[in-house]
Amino acid sequence: MAEKLLGSIEAGGTKFVCGVGTDDLTIVNRVSFPTTTPAETMKLVIDYFKQFDLKAIGVGSFGPIDIHQDSATYGFITTTPKLAWENFDFIGALKKYFDIPIAWTTDVNAAAYGEYVAGSAQGLASCVYYTIGTGIGGGAIQEGQFIEGFSHPEMGHMIVKKHPKDTFVGNCPFHQDCLEGMAAGPAIEKRAGQKGQELPADHVAWAMEAYYIAQAVYNTTLLLSPDVMILGGGVMQQPQLLPKIRFEFEKMLKNYVKTPLLEEYIVTPKLGNDAGTIGCLALARKTAI
Amino acid sequence: MAEKLLGSIEAGGTKFVCGVGTDDLTIVNRVSFPTTTPAETMKLVIDYFKQFDLKAIGVGSFGPIDIHQDSATYGFITTTPKLAWENFDFIGALKKYFDIPIAWTTDVNAAAYGEYVAGSAQGLASCVYYTIGTGIGGGAIQEGQFIEGFSHPEMGHMIVKKHPKDTFVGNCPFHQDCLEGMAAGPAIEKRAGQKGQELPADHVAWAMEAYYIAQAVYNTTLLLSPDVMILGGGVMQQPQLLPKIRFEFEKMLKNYVKTPLLEEYIVTPKLGNDAGTIGCLALARKTAI
Repeated sequence: MAEKLLGSIEAGGTKFVCGVGTDDLTIVNRVSFPTTTPAETMKLVIDYFKQFDLKAIGVGSFGPIDIHQDSATYGFITTTPKLAWENFDFIGALKKYFDIPIAWTTDVNAAAYGEYVAGSAQGLASCVYYTIGTGIGGGAIQEGQFIEGFSHPEMGHMIVKKHPKDTFVGNCPFHQDCLEGMAAGPAIEKRAGQKGQELPADHVAWAMEAYYIAQAVYNTTLLLSPDVMILGGGVMQQPQLLPKIRFEFEKMLKNYVKTPLLEEYIVTPKLGNDAGTIGCLALARKTAI
Repeated sequence: MAEKLLGSIEAGGTKFVCGVGTDDLTIVNRVSFPTTTPAETMKLVIDYFKQFDLKAIGVGSFGPIDIHQDSATYGFITTTPKLAWENFDFIGALKKYFDIPIAWTTDVNAAAYGEYVAGSAQGLASCVYYTIGTGIGGGAIQEGQFIEGFSHPEMGHMIVKKHPKDTFVGNCPFHQDCLEGMAAGPAIEKRAGQKGQELPADHVAWAMEAYYIAQAVYNTTLLLSPDVMILGGGVMQQPQLLPKIRFEFEKMLKNYVKTPLLEEYIVTPKLGNDAGTIGCLALARKTAI
């Protein structure tokens, strides 16, 4: 009899990436579907997984989501601006077809878990993972547990100080000039009048970007002191950013805290775009035990 | 035979509070000694505890301290500005006289633990505790574990945005206008030209203070989502502050995250000035098992 597989769902605001893998976290198959309505998208997801003999599924979802196992709406996406998905019973929809253990967390927690188990935080006791792209999100893990309480973190909306030369007012619909409002992809584009990918590596936009991300790294260092800070997402694919962030961070910290070597402390995800899938597989593996 | 007792040491920068208590965390006896030099102060501490039959001691120390059990300097105070205490082997000094289990953490973690076990966070899964006094420090607990990684948190030095009407430049020797530089007791005094205790309750200084502390609560909410935020320390003894902080926090959050009711979420320590002692006793109790 063939070994049962693990299922992975990265539920993003734009697309769902579904995959299956083995206990050693090898991705065997992977597909993606556009995020439209729950009826449409979930049908594709369920039809996809019906092809396989699964023992557990790990889900990393866009949010906010309800993570409290004793809550009546556990497993729901809650108050998302994507209205078709508001109050959607994600785990309930899966359980109708797959009566197996299902792990449930945020998309960024799932990517953090992938890096914790098999990436840049492998062998360490704790990590924080930020994704900096269309939005900004963060997840934290200590000794295998997600940092959480009344809900999951929403690190992307922390307060930042404005770069002295920045005249952009910010574009977060909630907080205007929070981290996401000043440093997510759309903010870079609005400030510069063109897409980040089109800006030269020495454009002042990158100095500003590094200044904002360094503030996130700095505050996260003081609040969580993780063993490693992993910065992922589309914006971090600009290779000039990482050294600039380390430089700004060092200027802010002023040696107040003795961090690990910055080249080992502020890093990009070792698993790259696989962090989310591998994280969901690892969460599925954990819940299947 | 009488029951063995638990020992508690709150090692502060100004004074050491030593006490003994029972397994139900009743404080049986308590004294305090000025923080002068290790030789002087530790002699008083050791002579005090020699009077009792102890089974374990819990220490909450000013820092930074080394919390890594596998480190050669575990149990040391490390790079403190109080030079007489720099690189002082605190646990080593105790172990010479007391060959019993000794728990070791920061002063603010100890107070957080007191509130977690027997105070405002009792029965909850997580909490964050800030002390706002001569300095500002914070500690966090999730499921009985301190949040930590390469070191313990140093939450007091997070970045804050300046209040639009505040002309004070800040007085943190490291970061100038970080949270501690803008909102600890000495900052209040320097800004207003008189001690905080002497300022009327409707002085603009308190609106500014609330604005800065609310930023700390806001950022901590987004990074940790604790079940409760406990604000202690001398500055919080101004009763007009707590409602102002809740008000500013609500304005910043803009309903982005659904917190618990603010009257239950942003609170003062139920144990008051006993939080540290009770926390150290509880840590001693835990390490004695």
